[in-house]
Amino acid sequence: MKKRIAVLGSTGSIGQQTLDVVRSFPDEFSIVALAAGQNTDLLSRQIAEFKPAFVYCQNGKDLLPDTGYKLLPMEEIACHSQVDIVLAATSGKAGLSAVMSAVTAGKTIALANKESLVMTGEIITRVASKTRARILPVDSEHSAIWQCLNGERQEPSRIILTASGGPFHNFSAGQLSRVTPEQALKHPSWQMGKKITIDSATLMNKGLEVIEAHWLFEAPFDNINVLIHPQSIIHSMVEFVDGSIKAQMSCPDMRLPIQYALSYPNRLPNPQLHRIEWNRIDKLTFEQPDFDTFPCLKLAIEAGRKGGTYPAVLCAADEEAVEMFLSGRIKFNNIADCVERALEQHQAIAHPGMEDVMESDERGRQSVREFVRESQC
Amino acid sequence: MKKRIAVLGSTGSIGQQTLDVVRSFPDEFSIVALAAGQNTDLLSRQIAEFKPAFVYCQNGKDLLPDTGYKLLPMEEIACHSQVDIVLAATSGKAGLSAVMSAVTAGKTIALANKESLVMTGEIITRVASKTRARILPVDSEHSAIWQCLNGERQEPSRIILTASGGPFHNFSAGQLSRVTPEQALKHPSWQMGKKITIDSATLMNKGLEVIEAHWLFEAPFDNINVLIHPQSIIHSMVEFVDGSIKAQMSCPDMRLPIQYALSYPNRLPNPQLHRIEWNRIDKLTFEQPDFDTFPCLKLAIEAGRKGGTYPAVLCAADEEAVEMFLSGRIKFNNIADCVERALEQHQAIAHPGMEDVMESDERGRQSVREFVRESQC
Repeated sequence: MKKRIAVLGSTGSIGQQTLDVVRSFPDEFSIVALAAGQNTDLLSRQIAEFKPAFVYCQNGKDLLPDTGYKLLPMEEIACHSQVDIVLAATSGKAGLSAVMSAVTAGKTIALANKESLVMTGEIITRVASKTRARILPVDSEHSAIWQCLNGERQEPSRIILTASGGPFHNFSAGQLSRVTPEQALKHPSWQMGKKITIDSATLMNKGLEVIEAHWLFEAPFDNINVLIHPQSIIHSMVEFVDGSIKAQMSCPDMRLPIQYALSYPNRLPNPQLHRIEWNRIDKLTFEQPDFDTFPCLKLAIEAGRKGGTYPAVLCAADEEAVEMFLSGRIKFNNIADCVERALEQHQAIAHPGMEDVMESDERGRQSVREFVRESQC
Repeated sequence: MKKRIAVLGSTGSIGQQTLDVVRSFPDEFSIVALAAGQNTDLLSRQIAEFKPAFVYCQNGKDLLPDTGYKLLPMEEIACHSQVDIVLAATSGKAGLSAVMSAVTAGKTIALANKESLVMTGEIITRVASKTRARILPVDSEHSAIWQCLNGERQEPSRIILTASGGPFHNFSAGQLSRVTPEQALKHPSWQMGKKITIDSATLMNKGLEVIEAHWLFEAPFDNINVLIHPQSIIHSMVEFVDGSIKAQMSCPDMRLPIQYALSYPNRLPNPQLHRIEWNRIDKLTFEQPDFDTFPCLKLAIEAGRKGGTYPAVLCAADEEAVEMFLSGRIKFNNIADCVERALEQHQAIAHPGMEDVMESDERGRQSVREFVRESQC
């Protein structure tokens, strides 16, 4: 039996790589649904190739050629009985309600949209434990942790999230203030979407991953460390109570964690995924992160520790601030200032419902917009 | 219920460290039997401390104070109904028949004596598959592989055995010929017995480990690679069909793999085992092994591939040659010459029984003795 997959965010970087994996294993996987936002051209081509039963397009039906599919909202696709795995790869807040719909329906969700867990981790994990929905990580770091935990009976004593350090590793605060969007969009190891590439440069992405790891692996924040590892070969590590550490490694290629989430608990041979050639590896190095120069990492971990609606504000403020940086309205180091301001202003709710999260999201964005307006007056 | 452990080779390096682990977990483990060779003083103290029900002493009963234990041959201890785990840590050929006895009785064997598997791997694994005896590795490398395979459903596509390279890493053949026993007994990362320390210096130990891995994990020789990793932090790695690699790491301390074999499938918190401090790790590096300068590695892998009685001759010739090197009769680089000569002279038996193995062992030693005599004439 083929696994029937719905790809939410099929025209984004993760979505396209997911379809690439599916292409490699036509006997294992079939695409039953595709959902995308703006890129109607690419979505049309994907529909022609994969002939999904269901389609969602933010830009509306009229832009798409009808080749027999049915248009459905993402929320309906995510919980549809014909879907075995929901690959959630919409960026930012866009996929949140679809993920909630999948979790409520007890689906298996391959989760690339980290904002869902960061913003609504408490709600999602509570519902998932009732519906027995399974959330499988697609992020390379969380996939690494998940692979390392495979077969272990006990909780890890420590999770070590590795980080490349991004394109501005070892930059000073002064240098960071002069960074352009073009520079920030060049990641040393990974090809990714714009938002996550900027988040990688500020280390906000690593902070969001700490919160994601907290929810995915039920790990206290004190047991999650971040370690800079510029070569991006070790994708994360887990330490156990006896001091033994397991690490997962590979050449940096998102198709591996995507494929693992789809093929789990099996692994599939994929010649397209390059093997590590050890004679080409000069050395693996490790450094402690610089929380002062990269305050987003600290802000994110603090927001995660405080919990409640703080992480939702963190995400929203960051999304807003990154957009402003990309459109040239603020400097690179102002991203952290914006997020910090939004968090300071936030009046948090301890155990929020979805509506509280949505309101906090809106307030977080507003804080950033106001702050930028004020600062530029 | 405490696990009841028989320690064969209790006065050796692995034996002493096993007792150290047992000391740390009096509620988990009890010592029901101790077996040792020459070191009667230490064995007496161990008996007084652990009060085992059974004792074996190569030097005979009269040298030991009787404090209520029963003297039994190692073979009887190894299959005794009161023993849950046999920790087999006698060095060289000495523990072979005890290991066979344990395997025949369907025991769980924590195997530190790699010669057993190297010499009689075919026999042991055949019997073990019938009696359902479990062979758990204690070698740090094989423990690493075992930990990495935990929870995986499929065979690994590649096993990467790491090697520190020993104290003479990067030595030339000329430098190696002038090496003294004192120099060879100083291993850069591990505290071990004499035989295995010399085997580490010649890389014979890594060759024996390749053969051991072949039998333990049913891996074809083509899928087992050796990788020099001088820092001895990564204890081995496993690559899967999707290109994902898992590595196990820790500070070099044999108590960790010993403890893991005893506590498996659980892990136990042991404050005596140091944690890796990542800010103290400068870098991890990797090199391909130099088969020409360290011919023992090549000889061992070839003997493993040929199979039959070749690995028994390899082990025996090496044991004899190492003794001769330690007693000053041959040079360091002659160890490989001796082993090569013994293998060349050997008329192998394809699917040997225990007697064939024992005969090959004797012939291997004889070859070395003759060769050394001839060379010095």
